[in-house]
Amino acid sequence: MRVVVPVSGSDPKTRLSPVLSPDERREFTKAMLTDVLAALDGAGYDPEVVSTAPIECDAPVTVDDRGLDALVNDLLTEEALAVVMADLPLITPETVERLFAPDADVVLAPGLGGGTNAFVCRHPDFYVDYHGASIRDHRRIAAEVGADLTEVDSRLLATDIDEPADLAEVLLHGDAAASEWLADAGFELALDDGRVGVERE
Amino acid sequence: MRVVVPVSGSDPKTRLSPVLSPDERREFTKAMLTDVLAALDGAGYDPEVVSTAPIECDAPVTVDDRGLDALVNDLLTEEALAVVMADLPLITPETVERLFAPDADVVLAPGLGGGTNAFVCRHPDFYVDYHGASIRDHRRIAAEVGADLTEVDSRLLATDIDEPADLAEVLLHGDAAASEWLADAGFELALDDGRVGVERE
Repeated sequence: MRVVVPVSGSDPKTRLSPVLSPDERREFTKAMLTDVLAALDGAGYDPEVVSTAPIECDAPVTVDDRGLDALVNDLLTEEALAVVMADLPLITPETVERLFAPDADVVLAPGLGGGTNAFVCRHPDFYVDYHGASIRDHRRIAAEVGADLTEVDSRLLATDIDEPADLAEVLLHGDAAASEWLADAGFELALDDGRVGVERE
Repeated sequence: MRVVVPVSGSDPKTRLSPVLSPDERREFTKAMLTDVLAALDGAGYDPEVVSTAPIECDAPVTVDDRGLDALVNDLLTEEALAVVMADLPLITPETVERLFAPDADVVLAPGLGGGTNAFVCRHPDFYVDYHGASIRDHRRIAAEVGADLTEVDSRLLATDIDEPADLAEVLLHGDAAASEWLADAGFELALDDGRVGVERE
């Protein structure tokens, strides 16, 4: 199966701007991509990266700046396709195996806040629409085209890193490139009465 | 195995105060508890509720206002114990089965933001400390007492409902008492550029 990891290589992760400079956002994005590619590789897959700009990584890179929907829907003409987002630094080979295990036409991995962080598609008519609460749209599209749908219940696949508060999840649970990058950049957990956050020294 | 669901019956979910009145927070807490008890019952368990104040629900209730650590550590003198938090309205019988499936001394279900949303304990020396980033403390305690540790990778178990933004997860993914309560109270999804939030009519 073809496995594609889309990534923004130019101005990624703008919602992390309050805590990371543009260069740091690019570096952190590369660290997260490293972790995602390692997990896919560890599960026996050969991922390809599609980036909006050239990016160094341990996989073949195609540069394509058309936007996610156009790009993925073009790829969905293939017989079977998996798309795994690049900002999922907690995923492990075991998580990847859980994503690929169900024998369904469409397998969705919901993200926190309504996104779709990964999917596997084995149906010719399924297509994506990443705007808004995409997980609802993808459920609807699967039903409309008559595709069997399964969802993977995984915290590690659900945890995409978009906002400063998300960095706490990387420090709490990560043990690879992204968490090392954050620690080297001076981030550490900050405890208060509610959920754990981060602070930078 | 004894299965206990601790809940705050008096002034629950204070971090939802910006969007829910005290009475509404109590009602919504009962709706979430209903969903948790139904999932446990559906998986074949007979949960008991321990509440800080009397609360109506479909399970035997013990009132105990000592605080979570004291309460749970007293129960941990039992041979085997599972504790499942009451604010996990997305869990299903299948999720419950995943929590109980591993044959480990201690099984932890991490919550978002460093919490421990559920655990199963089959080791005589394990104890809990829910302050701060409890998942880290529970990993450390399991190692210190020589208990085999497994973590369950579940978004549905990770999604505890504490803050207004969390309500979006219930509307996106829930289909039982808690999501019905929110819909009846006028909450609906609000789409913006980032993650999906909620608004109230």
